[in-house]
Amino acid sequence: MHKREWRTRDKRAAIAPIGLIHTPFKHADGTPIQGIAGKRAEGVVEVLPDLIEGLRDLKGFDRLWLIYHFDRASDMRLVVRPYLDSTERGVFSTRSPVRPNHIGISVVHLLQVEQNRLYVADVDMLDGTPLLDIKPYIPAFDSFEQSRAGWLNGKSALGVVADGRFEAQDADTE
Amino acid sequence: MHKREWRTRDKRAAIAPIGLIHTPFKHADGTPIQGIAGKRAEGVVEVLPDLIEGLRDLKGFDRLWLIYHFDRASDMRLVVRPYLDSTERGVFSTRSPVRPNHIGISVVHLLQVEQNRLYVADVDMLDGTPLLDIKPYIPAFDSFEQSRAGWLNGKSALGVVADGRFEAQDADTE
Repeated sequence: MHKREWRTRDKRAAIAPIGLIHTPFKHADGTPIQGIAGKRAEGVVEVLPDLIEGLRDLKGFDRLWLIYHFDRASDMRLVVRPYLDSTERGVFSTRSPVRPNHIGISVVHLLQVEQNRLYVADVDMLDGTPLLDIKPYIPAFDSFEQSRAGWLNGKSALGVVADGRFEAQDADTE
Repeated sequence: MHKREWRTRDKRAAIAPIGLIHTPFKHADGTPIQGIAGKRAEGVVEVLPDLIEGLRDLKGFDRLWLIYHFDRASDMRLVVRPYLDSTERGVFSTRSPVRPNHIGISVVHLLQVEQNRLYVADVDMLDGTPLLDIKPYIPAFDSFEQSRAGWLNGKSALGVVADGRFEAQDADTE
C-alpha cells in the first residue's frame, strides 16, 4: 500500500491509501451504520510516517472528515435496500458501500494527535480500512442543519447496526 | 474516462470518474473557495448514462455531496499557505487541492434532476472536473454546527476566491 502515483496525464484519479483506520469492527455485521450511531466507538487513524508533516495544525479541530476505501464491499449495485429503509433506493441517494467508486466519508471526533496517529471517536468503518484523505470539519462549509433529506427524513440511525448485505462474500477469507 | 475497474485484490482503490461537473469556472483564479462563498454559482453534474438507475430517489434531498478529482491540482505538498490564512498549515488541516490523493468534497444545492443530469447550485469546482461519487447530504450524519474549527475559527470564506497557487503550471495547455 505504500506505492503512490500522483497526477496522471489521462486524468484518471491516481489514488492510493495514505494510511489505515483501526477500529473495533472486524465485520460489517454489528458495525454502526454511521459514527453518530456508534456510541462513540473509538479508533486509531495511522497515517504513513512520511506524511506526518501534513498532520500539522489538526489539533484544534473537534472533528475531521475521513475519506476512505470500502475495500471489503461487494461489487457495485445501482439500486440497494439500505439499512434505514425497506424500499430499494438509487445507490447515490444512500451511503451504502456498494457504489461505483467504493469511497466512504465519515465525520469522526478528534481526541488526540500523537506523531502519525490520530485517536478518534465515532468511528463506523471496518478495522483495517484504507485511508484516502483527511480533511478538517468546518461548520461554515459542512453544516446545514435544516437540509431536507429525502427518503431519510424522520428516520434515525441511532442504534442501527449493519449486517453483511454489502460485504464481499469472500471478505472473511482474505 | 469510461473505463472502470472495480475491486482489486491488492486493496488499492480502483477509482475512475463516473461523470463530469460543468461549472462557470475555467481557471482556479477567481473561483470561489467553497460553494457557500460562491454566490450560488450554478453547475450541471453529468453522470455516465449507464449509471442513471443509481440517481433514483435523489429528488427530495436539498443538498448533495459531490466527491471529485482535483485533476488540475499541482502535485502534492504537505504544507500549504491556504486562501484563508497567511500562515503555512499542514495540508490535512486545509481543504487545499494539493493533497496526497487529489480528492475534493463539496456540498451543493440540488435544484433539479433530468435523466443523467443534476442541476446544482453553490458549485466551487473547476469546469470539467471528474466526478467520483454522489452522496446524499444527511444533517443527522453530516451537520455539526458547533464543531471547533482550529485555525479557521472566526474566519469567513464569504467572497474569498482562489488564485492559481495550487494549479498545475501546464493546466492551461491541456
